[in-house]
Amino acid sequence: MAEYKIGSDQIGANNDKHAKALYADYAALGEHLARRNIDIEKLVEKVSAYGVAVPSWGVGTGGTRFARFPGAGEPRDIFDKLDDCGVIHQLTGATPNVSLHIPWDKADPKALLEKADTLGLGFDAMNSNTFSDAEGQKHSYKFGSLSHASAATRAQAVEHNIECIEIGKAIGSKALTVWIGDGSNFPGQTNFTTQFERYLDAMKDVVKALPADWRIFTEHKMYEPAFYSTVVQDWGTNYMIAQELGPQAYCLVDLGHHAPNVNIEMIVARLIQFKKLGGFHFNDSKYGDDDLDTGSIDPFRLFLVFNELVDAEQRGAEGFDPAHMLDQSHNVTDPIESLMQSAMEVQRAYAQALLVDRGALKSFQEDNDALMAAQTLKKAFRTDVEPILAMARQRKGAAIDPIAAYRAAGYRAKVAAERPAVTGGSGGIV
Amino acid sequence: MAEYKIGSDQIGANNDKHAKALYADYAALGEHLARRNIDIEKLVEKVSAYGVAVPSWGVGTGGTRFARFPGAGEPRDIFDKLDDCGVIHQLTGATPNVSLHIPWDKADPKALLEKADTLGLGFDAMNSNTFSDAEGQKHSYKFGSLSHASAATRAQAVEHNIECIEIGKAIGSKALTVWIGDGSNFPGQTNFTTQFERYLDAMKDVVKALPADWRIFTEHKMYEPAFYSTVVQDWGTNYMIAQELGPQAYCLVDLGHHAPNVNIEMIVARLIQFKKLGGFHFNDSKYGDDDLDTGSIDPFRLFLVFNELVDAEQRGAEGFDPAHMLDQSHNVTDPIESLMQSAMEVQRAYAQALLVDRGALKSFQEDNDALMAAQTLKKAFRTDVEPILAMARQRKGAAIDPIAAYRAAGYRAKVAAERPAVTGGSGGIV
Amino acid sequence: MAEYKIGSDQIGANNDKHAKALYADYAALGEHLARRNIDIEKLVEKVSAYGVAVPSWGVGTGGTRFARFPGAGEPRDIFDKLDDCGVIHQLTGATPNVSLHIPWDKADPKALLEKADTLGLGFDAMNSNTFSDAEGQKHSYKFGSLSHASAATRAQAVEHNIECIEIGKAIGSKALTVWIGDGSNFPGQTNFTTQFERYLDAMKDVVKALPADWRIFTEHKMYEPAFYSTVVQDWGTNYMIAQELGPQAYCLVDLGHHAPNVNIEMIVARLIQFKKLGGFHFNDSKYGDDDLDTGSIDPFRLFLVFNELVDAEQRGAEGFDPAHMLDQSHNVTDPIESLMQSAMEVQRAYAQALLVDRGALKSFQEDNDALMAAQTLKKAFRTDVEPILAMARQRKGAAIDPIAAYRAAGYRAKVAAERPAVTGGSGGIV
Amino acid sequence: MAEYKIGSDQIGANNDKHAKALYADYAALGEHLARRNIDIEKLVEKVSAYGVAVPSWGVGTGGTRFARFPGAGEPRDIFDKLDDCGVIHQLTGATPNVSLHIPWDKADPKALLEKADTLGLGFDAMNSNTFSDAEGQKHSYKFGSLSHASAATRAQAVEHNIECIEIGKAIGSKALTVWIGDGSNFPGQTNFTTQFERYLDAMKDVVKALPADWRIFTEHKMYEPAFYSTVVQDWGTNYMIAQELGPQAYCLVDLGHHAPNVNIEMIVARLIQFKKLGGFHFNDSKYGDDDLDTGSIDPFRLFLVFNELVDAEQRGAEGFDPAHMLDQSHNVTDPIESLMQSAMEVQRAYAQALLVDRGALKSFQEDNDALMAAQTLKKAFRTDVEPILAMARQRKGAAIDPIAAYRAAGYRAKVAAERPAVTGGSGGIV
Repeated sequence: MAEYKIGSDQIGANNDKHAKALYADYAALGEHLARRNIDIEKLVEKVSAYGVAVPSWGVGTGGTRFARFPGAGEPRDIFDKLDDCGVIHQLTGATPNVSLHIPWDKADPKALLEKADTLGLGFDAMNSNTFSDAEGQKHSYKFGSLSHASAATRAQAVEHNIECIEIGKAIGSKALTVWIGDGSNFPGQTNFTTQFERYLDAMKDVVKALPADWRIFTEHKMYEPAFYSTVVQDWGTNYMIAQELGPQAYCLVDLGHHAPNVNIEMIVARLIQFKKLGGFHFNDSKYGDDDLDTGSIDPFRLFLVFNELVDAEQRGAEGFDPAHMLDQSHNVTDPIESLMQSAMEVQRAYAQALLVDRGALKSFQEDNDALMAAQTLKKAFRTDVEPILAMARQRKGAAIDPIAAYRAAGYRAKVAAERPAVTGGSGGIV
Repeated sequence: MAEYKIGSDQIGANNDKHAKALYADYAALGEHLARRNIDIEKLVEKVSAYGVAVPSWGVGTGGTRFARFPGAGEPRDIFDKLDDCGVIHQLTGATPNVSLHIPWDKADPKALLEKADTLGLGFDAMNSNTFSDAEGQKHSYKFGSLSHASAATRAQAVEHNIECIEIGKAIGSKALTVWIGDGSNFPGQTNFTTQFERYLDAMKDVVKALPADWRIFTEHKMYEPAFYSTVVQDWGTNYMIAQELGPQAYCLVDLGHHAPNVNIEMIVARLIQFKKLGGFHFNDSKYGDDDLDTGSIDPFRLFLVFNELVDAEQRGAEGFDPAHMLDQSHNVTDPIESLMQSAMEVQRAYAQALLVDRGALKSFQEDNDALMAAQTLKKAFRTDVEPILAMARQRKGAAIDPIAAYRAAGYRAKVAAERPAVTGGSGGIV
Repeated sequence: MAEYKIGSDQIGANNDKHAKALYADYAALGEHLARRNIDIEKLVEKVSAYGVAVPSWGVGTGGTRFARFPGAGEPRDIFDKLDDCGVIHQLTGATPNVSLHIPWDKADPKALLEKADTLGLGFDAMNSNTFSDAEGQKHSYKFGSLSHASAATRAQAVEHNIECIEIGKAIGSKALTVWIGDGSNFPGQTNFTTQFERYLDAMKDVVKALPADWRIFTEHKMYEPAFYSTVVQDWGTNYMIAQELGPQAYCLVDLGHHAPNVNIEMIVARLIQFKKLGGFHFNDSKYGDDDLDTGSIDPFRLFLVFNELVDAEQRGAEGFDPAHMLDQSHNVTDPIESLMQSAMEVQRAYAQALLVDRGALKSFQEDNDALMAAQTLKKAFRTDVEPILAMARQRKGAAIDPIAAYRAAGYRAKVAAERPAVTGGSGGIV
Repeated sequence: MAEYKIGSDQIGANNDKHAKALYADYAALGEHLARRNIDIEKLVEKVSAYGVAVPSWGVGTGGTRFARFPGAGEPRDIFDKLDDCGVIHQLTGATPNVSLHIPWDKADPKALLEKADTLGLGFDAMNSNTFSDAEGQKHSYKFGSLSHASAATRAQAVEHNIECIEIGKAIGSKALTVWIGDGSNFPGQTNFTTQFERYLDAMKDVVKALPADWRIFTEHKMYEPAFYSTVVQDWGTNYMIAQELGPQAYCLVDLGHHAPNVNIEMIVARLIQFKKLGGFHFNDSKYGDDDLDTGSIDPFRLFLVFNELVDAEQRGAEGFDPAHMLDQSHNVTDPIESLMQSAMEVQRAYAQALLVDRGALKSFQEDNDALMAAQTLKKAFRTDVEPILAMARQRKGAAIDPIAAYRAAGYRAKVAAERPAVTGGSGGIV
């Protein structure tokens, strides 16, 4: 039985305040959906069964190259982080798994498993880090890692990824996510082709170490930290990689890693169609890889991504089994609150996508009735599914209003007292 | 009494089908809003009083430089266009005014007024056209109009704008909208400063002809038809223009005329603050000036724009009185349907913005509670206000479901029989 | 022997004026390059042997959806167009082949061959057109062509492409370029997956009709004419297509068809590495598919593309044999002048790329000497290779200064007298 | 007499190696330019008199939010930084002034003046920092500084800016540059209007403290560190600020702070025309505020900016006196090398812009001869002015090839021995 950090009585008390309104809203929505021939109970079930992983690093306050402004009670290590992740899951019931980042989260696997177990958590994909230098590291990644000009540096990066797999095996993970910052800041700094060949060769060595029941996810990103070229710059290159690396290799889509104006939901569809969609890093963005809270800037875009996922699910697309994870930087909010809200936004988009009348949609598409096809999506999107999400939470003992319950429980103040303040952030690297 | 094109009995019959569900949804929403201390009836009133103008040219099928694919029953002249606009207003109750484009809509003012009167329509801002050459025009606008190197060409463009004012005066318009395509396709083709000086001088001549109770709106656009530089390229230049032209001059914001990623709602706020917001051309875009249907791509962005408008309205911002107009290109839909739906999307964003709890919002802002401030907006946005819009329509005799009522009435087939098919579009201008 | 439209004596007279300065500049550059261990004569040879194809449609004045402003003496048919193309090649010696567009250029193949022969021209890739409706066409492409929901429309589009191959066979072409406008303007209008499946199936039927010694080029474009989604939207999808269609299928890169900020030279490198680069449509852009003159906006980007091409050529990349073509819209210039200048800009970028000290570059890259690697490219780029290009022209009897020679010859005035003025362009499709 | 860090004999020895080639190239270019009626000597004079300021923070290695990879011999304090800046100026003769950042460069003003004096350096604009928290600072800038909701925080930020002025007065600076990171990460987090009012009020307090012979530069930036909205987001808002703050206030243009695709040279022209151009932060960018080396990504764009500056200079634009400064982040190069190369790139663009035949250009513009107008700019741009720059350096005792001379002198190794290694950078703020 999970030893949650917040008393279930506290949650219960908070839920009592919202229960009456929830029942009324739920009943009304149920009747409305019944008129649309949709069974609200089935939606609650589906939403209830849905989970999105949280990243261990997400519970710390993020920053930019200009500054990092720490928050109160920041986690000191992976065990503090797991406590915070446990709160998120306890209150939302939506985030059963945590994704670790090595070397940041390195610890005794047994201790990790025990800690996670007490919190009712499991472990999602492992994440390697060759975009910064760890203390005492022999070869620097300043000029690249898996694609570095020097064989020794590449070997070190391969070794690190294999180490991530080993740790993951010990804690029950089934996937490795590889994102690298390799690229260049000047035209001419690297030879695109040579650099990519090196990357592919190194990754093939990583794949060799992959257990048979694991998947490997490669993640593309247009730019940053490299500002002229990036080795895995877009989904086209990512798809080439997944093909080269074989049947265990898949593409990971981070919603903020694309060129301006790109139609992301279409990329998702293409990867599903060619059986290479590995999963998602959910977040939102206005300008670049802003790592803003999921659904905070363009909730309709998030819905359109889920529209593709539900479409694939319902037509039984072959090999379709994407991993879902949040990946955000929380610079001005309490990270626990942002992750709770974001998990709910992901659920919201999923619930809305489930509401789409797919029979009608297909028929409008076949008839080139663009307006009614579009309205079919919009009708689903504008339905306020909050009562469905809240009911799913309430029924599993989570909070009807997780933010309110979290604040009422005083968790942040409590850990702030226990965890010493982290000093500043960077600066000087304008 | 308006002589509408669709029988009120037809609308009534269609409404009968939807009335029961509407009443149920409306009652449920009313109760829900009451719990949020919002009076649904006041919202219906506000929405009911709201109108957005339609552009006369919007009822024809649009196209691209590659092709135009005509639709059935396209309007042959301004009187056909007014008939179509009448239908839009009849069914939505949301578009009381039509905006004319000269020379396309040139006609006897008296006949225009009479026709509009029978349809229950009025006239919004006049639009001049110096971005294409009219038949028989003396000087070509190939290399510019109001900013052309030749004084004679500039004078001709000024004259045309004055003519638009004259026509407008005769039909009760109170504003002139000036959008020009002037710019350049090559670095060096024009001198930016000289060209802008010419533009300002020419516009000052137009302003001289402006009646005292008129306003003049200048509209900026980043690019197209000019592809290297555009004279009125952004809101910064537009603001300079409005300052130079004096108190009757205001900036018009078209939602699709900005650089990628630009925060449009912030531009709106700035123009309100400096008393130079003239109004809007509503539409939506994914890549550029796509002229897609309002709210079809990023409905949250539209809401955020209305959030600024309602904020200004409620705090009584000085000189705040923006004009609202749709401006879209309907390439793959029945233009009447797209304009009806778009007018409703504008109303929807307005209704959602009215739901924002501004007291709470302000308080969260003062406390730097970014998450709850954001959720205050999201809560308003995700409320399904459809029953409010539908009730506003129903009460004024418009259609609960305008698209369904329109299709049931067979209007398109009827005019297709009366109006000969328009042949093709361009091509060859790749 | 070619029957050129401009007297060789006229060219000779013009060259006489520029010869002395050219010899001086050439000698100085030769000495300078010798100090860099580069033999200027070898560069002249390489540049002299280089050719870029011109598009038949490029010799007409282009336009935008707002207007087209015709020029004087616009070609009336493909034979006039070939005359204009002949002038371009005569004066620059750089454009030996013409690329035809069907149905615009449909004519008796024998007559085409004879005409081209008299002008010293050959035929490049064939271009099909299913983005606009030809007169009398049975099924409209309003809602798509090769990916249309209706099998009959798809079959018609396939048939048209096969016809293009047939015509091409008769005139000595060896490639078909397929660009379609298929996509959607609304989320939901089409099912991405179904639409792409239809496209692939249709293209497979086209490929079946491809002669064994032909190649087929598919061209991607982010948007326009479709403004929400496009079937062949980026190089990732284009690469999937080339893989699906087999060994005769290659990707065509148009420099203006990418998302903002995209690193195009890197895409070129990837396609070369995976043996799927088919060729180029050269032009330049600032905002989108602006179709501006090659090298007019960002000449360094053009150089960086050629840097990849020369790199591939010199290391003997397997299967490397891209087609080179201009594809531009000339809205404000004499199309003949723009095409001449653009052909020279392509040659310039090629010559500059040939100047790169690849041994030094590789060494700097291996040493992570980013600054010197970058300077190695910049040094090549900033070398003024104009004397090399001019000498290559002069030696083959073309013009030292093609624009001056063309204007002196009075060709435009002459054809303007012969060819009746084309009336206006579109308008009304805002 | 300046006590430079590198022996003049070392520079002399290096120059001897390059002198012969330089004289040959210079003579050839002189003859070529004479044929274009341009006196090369006058160009050398102009270039020789031109200087661009370097930022004190630029001599340290930069980083991203993901990591910072330190270089060898990084400066420990402002005195080390001044030594490095002295080397840059000694070798290029192009960077006579240094711009300080407070609090990073806080030191005894007298000591600063003396140190600068021994290095032949002066001080450019002062830069305040309210985008990160200094140690011991009372109020955090996490949620803003000059526009913060709390009056106390705003007052602290005002105070800091006044302190910068005070320091500047003591060391002979004549300008204050204010860039803030204030903005928001969520729609709703701040009220745009209130926030901007607060900013304006605070800045008015700063301006009150400005000496009569000083200027104040405000710098706009689209995004980062704020990712939804930024208070001074674009030149439109920046222009409003300069108007509100009065005659000493001007707009500063950083080349990397704009939306994608924006025509920056046009913004420069507008600000000159309305007498509000304060100056530049030069750098280059491909994706955003990449802070790459000036001229490394799009050298033609840099030339087009200088084309506006030379145009304004030559027509004697009223009040035209912009400040020129580099502002870059050197993540993968030796910062001294990058700053030297960048200073030379700025000079190069200036020299190229001086070559433009402005009489011919104007004439082509008046005639709407777009092609020849464009070619007039391109002809100037493609002239290799390296011999002019090198001769200007050689004549003032700087290095013909500064990078080579710098490397030969072994400066970096020397300071690396003196200055202890700086440990790592950030990380963990993904």
